[in-house]
Amino acid sequence: MRFCRRRLGWRLISTMTQKPTRFLTQPASRIHEELNRGTDVWTFFNQGVFPTAVNLGQGFMNWKPPAFLLDRLLEEARDRVDLHHYSPARGRPRLLKAISETYSASFHKPTANNTDMFEGKVDLDATGLPAQRPQSGEKLDPMSEIVVTPGANEAMYSAATAFLEEGDEVVLLEPFFDQYVCEAMYNGGVPVYVPMLPPSSEKHAVSANEWQFDWDLLEEKLASPRAKLLFLNTPHNPIGKVLSLQELQRLAALCIKYDILVISDEVYDCLTYDQQEHIRLASISGMWERTITIGSAGKTFACTGWRVGWAIGPKHLITPTMTAHLRITFTTNSIASEGAALGLELAEQEHFFEKQREEYAARRQELMTALDHLGLPYTVPHGSYFVLVDARSIRIPDDFELPNEVRKKARDYHICWFIGHVCDVIVLPATAFYADNHAKHGERFIRFAFCKDNQLGEAARRLEKVRARLSYQLRPYLAQSHQK
Amino acid sequence: MRFCRRRLGWRLISTMTQKPTRFLTQPASRIHEELNRGTDVWTFFNQGVFPTAVNLGQGFMNWKPPAFLLDRLLEEARDRVDLHHYSPARGRPRLLKAISETYSASFHKPTANNTDMFEGKVDLDATGLPAQRPQSGEKLDPMSEIVVTPGANEAMYSAATAFLEEGDEVVLLEPFFDQYVCEAMYNGGVPVYVPMLPPSSEKHAVSANEWQFDWDLLEEKLASPRAKLLFLNTPHNPIGKVLSLQELQRLAALCIKYDILVISDEVYDCLTYDQQEHIRLASISGMWERTITIGSAGKTFACTGWRVGWAIGPKHLITPTMTAHLRITFTTNSIASEGAALGLELAEQEHFFEKQREEYAARRQELMTALDHLGLPYTVPHGSYFVLVDARSIRIPDDFELPNEVRKKARDYHICWFIGHVCDVIVLPATAFYADNHAKHGERFIRFAFCKDNQLGEAARRLEKVRARLSYQLRPYLAQSHQK
Repeated sequence: MRFCRRRLGWRLISTMTQKPTRFLTQPASRIHEELNRGTDVWTFFNQGVFPTAVNLGQGFMNWKPPAFLLDRLLEEARDRVDLHHYSPARGRPRLLKAISETYSASFHKPTANNTDMFEGKVDLDATGLPAQRPQSGEKLDPMSEIVVTPGANEAMYSAATAFLEEGDEVVLLEPFFDQYVCEAMYNGGVPVYVPMLPPSSEKHAVSANEWQFDWDLLEEKLASPRAKLLFLNTPHNPIGKVLSLQELQRLAALCIKYDILVISDEVYDCLTYDQQEHIRLASISGMWERTITIGSAGKTFACTGWRVGWAIGPKHLITPTMTAHLRITFTTNSIASEGAALGLELAEQEHFFEKQREEYAARRQELMTALDHLGLPYTVPHGSYFVLVDARSIRIPDDFELPNEVRKKARDYHICWFIGHVCDVIVLPATAFYADNHAKHGERFIRFAFCKDNQLGEAARRLEKVRARLSYQLRPYLAQSHQK
Repeated sequence: MRFCRRRLGWRLISTMTQKPTRFLTQPASRIHEELNRGTDVWTFFNQGVFPTAVNLGQGFMNWKPPAFLLDRLLEEARDRVDLHHYSPARGRPRLLKAISETYSASFHKPTANNTDMFEGKVDLDATGLPAQRPQSGEKLDPMSEIVVTPGANEAMYSAATAFLEEGDEVVLLEPFFDQYVCEAMYNGGVPVYVPMLPPSSEKHAVSANEWQFDWDLLEEKLASPRAKLLFLNTPHNPIGKVLSLQELQRLAALCIKYDILVISDEVYDCLTYDQQEHIRLASISGMWERTITIGSAGKTFACTGWRVGWAIGPKHLITPTMTAHLRITFTTNSIASEGAALGLELAEQEHFFEKQREEYAARRQELMTALDHLGLPYTVPHGSYFVLVDARSIRIPDDFELPNEVRKKARDYHICWFIGHVCDVIVLPATAFYADNHAKHGERFIRFAFCKDNQLGEAARRLEKVRARLSYQLRPYLAQSHQK
């Protein structure tokens, strides 16, 4: 270092003047790619950019959590001191118990005296695939098989922290919830992408369940000696696919064969339509012991801002996840946790899940009807609250100006920007949910969220403005529209 | 894999029967040490273990956030939809603004046209140490210099994720808030410990500010070529030390000399006593550009269960921290964020900080008076809400049985267990805040939290039961008790 006399006193001129310091210029390598990624999808398409838009972009509701829960919760928050202070790191006992009571049945948990899982024994069905276990009546143990986290996101992040070594391969099925990538990468994981295959049919409305796994490619990736973890999502965002029992069994066979751990993101578990039943991957023989199942109060009770999620699994997976969670965030907001507990406790007597499902199904129908009228082809979702629209028929006029940042992106970004400007409706480009170099698989799709009350009619009216921009070739599909 | 016929159908016996699978037995190496640590301090000493105890252990208050804030917040939570849904990842604009308004002055931020920081220039005072910058009137930029997180803990974790490479050394001053260790280790950091030195005086009550840095050892550790990050904590938990301007300047000189990044945990910034002023490390010349300052709504407004904290610093440090945070938890509870904003907006007109400080000072006095009467020597805290008690004089009877898990720990754990059983008062062993192999530096101390209303008198009465167990030698200190 050099010292020199300046007008206002001594000054030290450090070597920083000669070379960049390590901290000013060097964030950790794990975040380099993300730092350099440039503007993300949420920055392009939000209410700040389009202030008067109908927002069918980010997946949050425009209504409050149900009154049967909220009114009581706010009373308790007024009266009780404990709702304002630390909850145990694992979660409030009341919420852990409520999660166990609500969800145990759907896991078909192995019976306590069943030691098969430690011997790696798997029951096969007649077709040679791992079978779904029968109902056992076994309860999830609140103190060892559940951990509550500030949002489902942190549950997944904690699981990744708990299990990924530098260089472990993490298989993601495209399109994927964009958070999975960094949850893996920040913990040393190397994302490996396997696109889901849209139906080749050119029907106006295809079923989400016609989207297929590329089983060969998936097996190839899972067979890699470094493959460690698979992120699964059912019901699926953004496709709306609800995995069938057979698909889950085939997945299970591969995960068992190649000794793969699964983070199964099932946050839309209570939102399925068309009599589709959500089946948990963990309920398949051989999978309880290798699956961390993720749930979310935000999706379940319309309170995405509460940030309450959970991870469920066997003790040997939840203890490490909890060990990570304890140091990452320590614990979860107490008021919101109590709210989630209240919700789960009261849901049955309020017939909440049935009613909510019906309401979402009606919203889905309203959006699909609007798309039918417009003649925009789409995938019919059987779960979650998104519709993936095929936007190939939308033609952007040559003289429409795209900001440079948008122009650099795939075609679906252009379309969403166009719709934002022309219709004042926010929708999201599907390639945001694909790897950068896989844009070709997703760029024909855009995602509409239908978790919006009293806005879908207005959105439909506004979307009429793209009608003049629809190319002729794709219009005939109108006649085959999907009607419930 | 082998297949075999069983009574109930086909069974697949995987290779798992031969060797342990990689996931069943192999959590990530980053958490191995923590997984194997065994029972932690919070598991030994909590209200579950001592159900009727007066709990002076974990540092949470037994009162609600102030009514001026809570009443209004609960009304807004009843009426407003947005309080139940996602906040922006960086934080709610209202809270970011309130943080900027409240705290800007204390940072003495370099003026916008001051490019010295990018040239590494540092103003020195007459003694040759980096000087505190004069007040500049510059405001913290809510959109680039602040990020709100679900608890101060996640702010620190995110900063560590953003800046630590595998093998980077992270310097911790013992005793330390125990979360720092894993925040470093889970992100590849290697903790390096530098004990703070208690005063050698055998006075009954010593000032927290008599605890000193071991400057030589600290410099030795910071000089290591792999040293990257220092965790600082002022006002200090558990010592109660409020770093003086000169100490901060000496620290700054070392951090500048060795190009060290600092996470400065200042969550007790509004809780100082005896006319001690909290000074921010970032206000010292050369430090704004290398310091991430951490704050907490939980400590500030008596709402530890809300989980709202924040990181403040220059854009080149906050952008990477935000990039990490966005993927770790994404965003923070909206109701609690709005509550923190309300609190900061209304604090001044309510004279909240002054009143709160007086109330805490009174609680501190009540606890110190009890310790005076008992003749238990202690450190007088000038900040935070803990008193470190010197427990050497407490003798555990030979026939008192310690559980095996406790017996394996240092003497302070034995003492805390003894106090828990004999007095039904929960207090914490100081070695929980030291590295395992540095227990000798901390095992004479136990920590009492005084963030408890109407319980300190009862605690004092119950603690009388150890009087008979105090060894004679240390009693004379009673006469020198500290009276405010």
